[in-house]
Amino acid sequence: MAKTVITVDDLDAIALGGAFLGTGGGGDPYIGKLMARAALAANGPVTLIDPADVGDDDLCVPVFMMGAPTVMLEKLPSGTEIMAALDQLETYLGKKATALMCVEAGGLNSTIPFAVAAATGLPLIDGDGMGRAFPELQMVSFTMSGISATPLVLADDKGNSVLINAVDNLWTERLARADAVQMGGAALVAAYSMTGAQMRDSILPGTMTMIREIGETLMAERKAHRHPGAALRARFSGHHLFTGRVNDIERKTVGGFARGRAVIKGTDAFAGREFSIDFQNEFLVARDDTGAVLATTPDLICALDADAGMPVTTEQMRYGLLIEITGLPADPKWRSDAGLNLVGPSYFGYDHAYAPVEEINNNKNLNQD
Amino acid sequence: MAKTVITVDDLDAIALGGAFLGTGGGGDPYIGKLMARAALAANGPVTLIDPADVGDDDLCVPVFMMGAPTVMLEKLPSGTEIMAALDQLETYLGKKATALMCVEAGGLNSTIPFAVAAATGLPLIDGDGMGRAFPELQMVSFTMSGISATPLVLADDKGNSVLINAVDNLWTERLARADAVQMGGAALVAAYSMTGAQMRDSILPGTMTMIREIGETLMAERKAHRHPGAALRARFSGHHLFTGRVNDIERKTVGGFARGRAVIKGTDAFAGREFSIDFQNEFLVARDDTGAVLATTPDLICALDADAGMPVTTEQMRYGLLIEITGLPADPKWRSDAGLNLVGPSYFGYDHAYAPVEEINNNKNLNQD
Repeated sequence: MAKTVITVDDLDAIALGGAFLGTGGGGDPYIGKLMARAALAANGPVTLIDPADVGDDDLCVPVFMMGAPTVMLEKLPSGTEIMAALDQLETYLGKKATALMCVEAGGLNSTIPFAVAAATGLPLIDGDGMGRAFPELQMVSFTMSGISATPLVLADDKGNSVLINAVDNLWTERLARADAVQMGGAALVAAYSMTGAQMRDSILPGTMTMIREIGETLMAERKAHRHPGAALRARFSGHHLFTGRVNDIERKTVGGFARGRAVIKGTDAFAGREFSIDFQNEFLVARDDTGAVLATTPDLICALDADAGMPVTTEQMRYGLLIEITGLPADPKWRSDAGLNLVGPSYFGYDHAYAPVEEINNNKNLNQD
Repeated sequence: MAKTVITVDDLDAIALGGAFLGTGGGGDPYIGKLMARAALAANGPVTLIDPADVGDDDLCVPVFMMGAPTVMLEKLPSGTEIMAALDQLETYLGKKATALMCVEAGGLNSTIPFAVAAATGLPLIDGDGMGRAFPELQMVSFTMSGISATPLVLADDKGNSVLINAVDNLWTERLARADAVQMGGAALVAAYSMTGAQMRDSILPGTMTMIREIGETLMAERKAHRHPGAALRARFSGHHLFTGRVNDIERKTVGGFARGRAVIKGTDAFAGREFSIDFQNEFLVARDDTGAVLATTPDLICALDADAGMPVTTEQMRYGLLIEITGLPADPKWRSDAGLNLVGPSYFGYDHAYAPVEEINNNKNLNQD
């Protein structure tokens, strides 16, 4: 039985690792850490369990926040919303959750499940549905395994809640997004309830452990006065795509998403060149000045502050910020035809074909780190 | 015990009377009649009961369609959606409905409850929540009595459903409207469930009987080759606001509503003058060429085809159509401060104060009929 006890002391690493793997989305690590810290301080540590240790008929329930990250920053969850969402889902199912899950990496969405686990005393399963963050609800490995997002419950800070039953996960996204927009741009959600057997069939295992390792590496490097980028790339098969200063950023919150594009002027080894990153809550495509793709969804585009070494979310991107961009290979599930159908470039309206980040960058970046 | 048996033969009158009292909204009478006719033909007649004959603890459930009337015309309900909505509401409440209700008058929303009553064998209560039609969910006498719209269930033709619990009826409108828009612009709804005692405290009694009388008067006059306008005004304290030809109509479906304005060139006794009618699903304000208000929400602005004598809905208004406009006094509840707060001119963004249709028109229209 692989069980890990997560205490208040682990939350810094988890929030930072989640934010790095969240590829710009998944919420602010500072807010996420505060929420989880309060819950663990009040209720004690959380047990992280291996997917193998969950019973076939156990009820596993992912909990998360959905909405534009820009809104999440202004509208802090109190903690009661997510408990209301879980409670209403359990009432509807007529069954109590036996374990909690995480849907995506992110400063907030990697830590919210710990807060709920502490408050309920339930264990949290080591894994998630993305191995990164994606902007839409149906973009989880659970969808590839035929697991329904519904019944889904959204709850807001005012006391409103919505329970959705939909014919497929794309319909769930449409309905839930419309409600989240009305709820002020973001809502807390319990959805994708599944049996232990379904969970094992669909989860991307080990994500929580990986997130903690990323966070610990990041903190250790910073403590040793080194920028953590190189160590993270070495440890997680990453590619240094570029370093530069944000020269222009265009963003709008539309349809419940934070969409936009950042233009970055290269510095250091990349001086004299210009790069761009498109985002929809998460960073989707990185390009150089010739328009050539350096990394594309579903591969991960992770941003670190080039000075401070801290993860940078899409809403933190601002004119003049010096950033270092790392590309990481996505989970092999996302590189399958089914995965690319859900989250590949064409789903987001791009013309370019998917090419793995390591194939694009193996030659040209050999000597850049 | 005042019980009336409603058979297939009564549905023409109910659909037409509903459409007239629907003040341009509440759905198309032809579609409503077809739906109800199919249900009554398959399941037998419906019992219309007096509010006084419902037990204090009985569960009374209104059923209706919400959305833009323009969409309702293109997207005919199959009948299964509204049964799904009712069924899910009953499951959530853990209790079966003992009587059905109507929320508003309208070609569709006065007949849908008959279709559901026939399919379930439940009686329908003689009354509604508006005594006309209004565009938004919270605009019912039930809101004035403090009755919650939620739990509310929306269901669509694809098999999606949404159950809302909201802190007030305005929040319910926002969330339900957003879902209805996603569902294709219209959805079938079960909401405002209440006890028999609450129903008696809040219902506008007798609306179904009034609708049938309007429809019967309309049909009898047409059969006698008379335009029904004069007889309807004589019977229901109406005012002949004007007759004219639609000269211009501007409309857009926005935010889930059909909004717009029609400009009408007066004919007959009104020749040489120009009039306008604003609408949001329903006709809201009628004005003459000086901009003076002839009738304003919450009073009723009812349109008849000046040639055929049939009710005209907002979506049937078109260039060249000759229409005769009648103003009817709203139920006294709507003229109270609480009523005007919910549905008065200022709620819809107008500057003019409310003035009763009879005060505006008593002198000037004395000799026009």
